[in-house]
Amino acid sequence: MKKHLVTVDIVLFTIRERNLHVLLIRRLAKPFENCFALPGGFVLKSESLDEAAARELREETGIEKVYLEQLYTFGELDRDPRGRVVTVAYYALVPPTHTLHSGTDAADAAWFPVDKLPALGFDHRQIVEYAHHRIRNKLDYTNVGFELLPEKFTLTELQLVHEAILGGPLDKRNFRRKTGQKGIVEPTGEWQRTGRKPAQLYRFSS
Amino acid sequence: MKKHLVTVDIVLFTIRERNLHVLLIRRLAKPFENCFALPGGFVLKSESLDEAAARELREETGIEKVYLEQLYTFGELDRDPRGRVVTVAYYALVPPTHTLHSGTDAADAAWFPVDKLPALGFDHRQIVEYAHHRIRNKLDYTNVGFELLPEKFTLTELQLVHEAILGGPLDKRNFRRKTGQKGIVEPTGEWQRTGRKPAQLYRFSS
Repeated sequence: MKKHLVTVDIVLFTIRERNLHVLLIRRLAKPFENCFALPGGFVLKSESLDEAAARELREETGIEKVYLEQLYTFGELDRDPRGRVVTVAYYALVPPTHTLHSGTDAADAAWFPVDKLPALGFDHRQIVEYAHHRIRNKLDYTNVGFELLPEKFTLTELQLVHEAILGGPLDKRNFRRKTGQKGIVEPTGEWQRTGRKPAQLYRFSS
Repeated sequence: MKKHLVTVDIVLFTIRERNLHVLLIRRLAKPFENCFALPGGFVLKSESLDEAAARELREETGIEKVYLEQLYTFGELDRDPRGRVVTVAYYALVPPTHTLHSGTDAADAAWFPVDKLPALGFDHRQIVEYAHHRIRNKLDYTNVGFELLPEKFTLTELQLVHEAILGGPLDKRNFRRKTGQKGIVEPTGEWQRTGRKPAQLYRFSS
């Protein structure tokens, strides 16, 4: 009766060469054959939504052990040419060190700059934009960049993460003043002495 | 093949007698017959998820024209005794002025204090707790209480909304200092002169 196809789609972000990138796969199967799309696929009867997202990511890209956060569920009537498909989208921000493997349904998996995406199948461009919007908003009140930074980091390293996610340069003095007000990070009392001048090391406040 | 039953469930909050309340219905149908549960039901083939949530709320409670925000999608395998059912939860914070009507699947619709809920069917207690967690977090950086306040309001009125959502009294001086720092509200330049002393009127910053 009122049954629906349910999929999961995964928006995986990383920062490469100071720019925010998103992981896409080239589809081998119809619809949108040869188009790029997000990794994802049908939810099986025997798995939770979280399990489905982890499995699809592993099968299509070889990436494992990523903490995926649920983003939003998209259920417009015309979003999939195969008929009514409800998709539960997930996202994560990961270090760029993952090695990519292609799976059975996907020819190539590759990182693309978020501001230079190819044509995407389904409503996946909208899903990427919503995920980008979410991490941009979270910058202000969470430790959203923590996966990308070492446990102790300098404010310059933190600023580079913010610049990549926001897509442009920030004024150093303003960035430091606002970061201090928010209380998301705290000084560790230690200093990094590898650069020209020593830089204070910070960590995310618990 | 991989089709699933998909439902929507709606967590509607209001503030009554200074306490946060949630709308529940008494179920007439199995499973959990005669138990309380959130308003909700199956998504039809012909409607989007947002449309399904609005329709179920209207059918089961008579409440219309509420801006429902998607909360989270719950898809654990054992959450519904009828088998695999994925539910997309929605929430809203509304004024307590809505008149409640009961629908065909629901005997009674009534407001319950969020800290004194009856036994709920399915995983609905978990869904209510998650929705409460969400609006509590949103207090700090959004105009989450705007549906409950007139366009122009005093800081005392704003504090009452925060106290209801947080479930306890706040220190007036701390509340005003933090509210000033956050920049979520701004003075209108007008004064309310109905109380013992005039109180400055505020609005949410755009």
